[in-house]
Amino acid sequence: MEIPVVKQILSANDEVAAGVRDALAQQGILAVNVMASPGAGKTSLILATAAGLPARLRPGVIEGDLASTIDTDTLTARGIPAVQINTGGNCHLDAPMIRAGLAHLPLAEIDLLFIENVGNLVCPAGWDLGADAAVVIASVPEGHDKPYKYPGMFAAADAVVLNKADLVAYFDFDLAYFERGLRMVNPDAPLFVVSCRTGNGVAAWVNWLVGRAKR
Amino acid sequence: MEIPVVKQILSANDEVAAGVRDALAQQGILAVNVMASPGAGKTSLILATAAGLPARLRPGVIEGDLASTIDTDTLTARGIPAVQINTGGNCHLDAPMIRAGLAHLPLAEIDLLFIENVGNLVCPAGWDLGADAAVVIASVPEGHDKPYKYPGMFAAADAVVLNKADLVAYFDFDLAYFERGLRMVNPDAPLFVVSCRTGNGVAAWVNWLVGRAKR
Repeated sequence: MEIPVVKQILSANDEVAAGVRDALAQQGILAVNVMASPGAGKTSLILATAAGLPARLRPGVIEGDLASTIDTDTLTARGIPAVQINTGGNCHLDAPMIRAGLAHLPLAEIDLLFIENVGNLVCPAGWDLGADAAVVIASVPEGHDKPYKYPGMFAAADAVVLNKADLVAYFDFDLAYFERGLRMVNPDAPLFVVSCRTGNGVAAWVNWLVGRAKR
Repeated sequence: MEIPVVKQILSANDEVAAGVRDALAQQGILAVNVMASPGAGKTSLILATAAGLPARLRPGVIEGDLASTIDTDTLTARGIPAVQINTGGNCHLDAPMIRAGLAHLPLAEIDLLFIENVGNLVCPAGWDLGADAAVVIASVPEGHDKPYKYPGMFAAADAVVLNKADLVAYFDFDLAYFERGLRMVNPDAPLFVVSCRTGNGVAAWVNWLVGRAKR
């Protein structure tokens, strides 16, 4: 009796996600679901990416957090249109939240929509938000074993960004081991090794993203 | 109709948690639920703590991960009895998993049981595992805003450990801001600022823990 209920919930999300996807396609907006552990650098990557975009591609952000408006305050202070979604206790964004967020954004002035998910390397992977691509950010201080320990998240990525690469030596981070773990669950997603702090490597990631833009 | 089902699941967990708590009390074992983001240093803190314990307090570990035996391999290589629980997709440990794990540990040779939860700053906070205390580890590279963004987890802590403190200057980490956020949701839990890498600050945390031991 319970399984049909769960099914209903999932397809309700997927139905809304399909609507979000259609709406974004009509507007010519590329949407990216940005997922990572807390503090891996989701907002930092969005800021660094926005700064590196060609002028014709204007960024916007849907910002997901359990609580607070810290990241949205940072983004809007830089002139990036952003809307905050506070999930309360919820450990991930879902498609109805995205639909609600879109209503508060100036979509005609956005070409590239970043959806910053709740900081969580487990739960967000299972939810279709209607985005065109999923990017997973890992960060060097978290350690090189993350793809082995959180395979579902890394399997779901269309691109993987390894941030805080300026600390590889300090943390004895074994990049080859990290990449082997990634390839076990995801043979194809490009891996971008970056430091949002120094800017190293960000251009290659931005190029990949720009190549997927719809206009 | 759905709410009673959820209630049943919760009380099933709490019932098992009560049994775990009783079993640990009878054995004189202090159990600590260790929660943190991925890569904040849960295993590192357990290793540093184990190394700092007086000889009369023998450690043991229940290790929770979605996948892999990486941490259990590390612990057992150091001579610490440990059992791995792989949750599959599950984003947190629950009491039945702890009950199952206990059956695989030499309880008569353990005085202090660390339960290392799945790396996740959201979901584990809501689940009683039958432990005596909950410790939340934050780490400097994650940033000083975590108590504001993940209030539920920090509210649930009996003690908070801030790890990787050797990097405070590198990350412009504002300790006063972090602590203000912590105190908004948790006025009482002691805060231990440590570096598992250098060993700084670990002794104060170990003292707090030793003071709660049952024998």
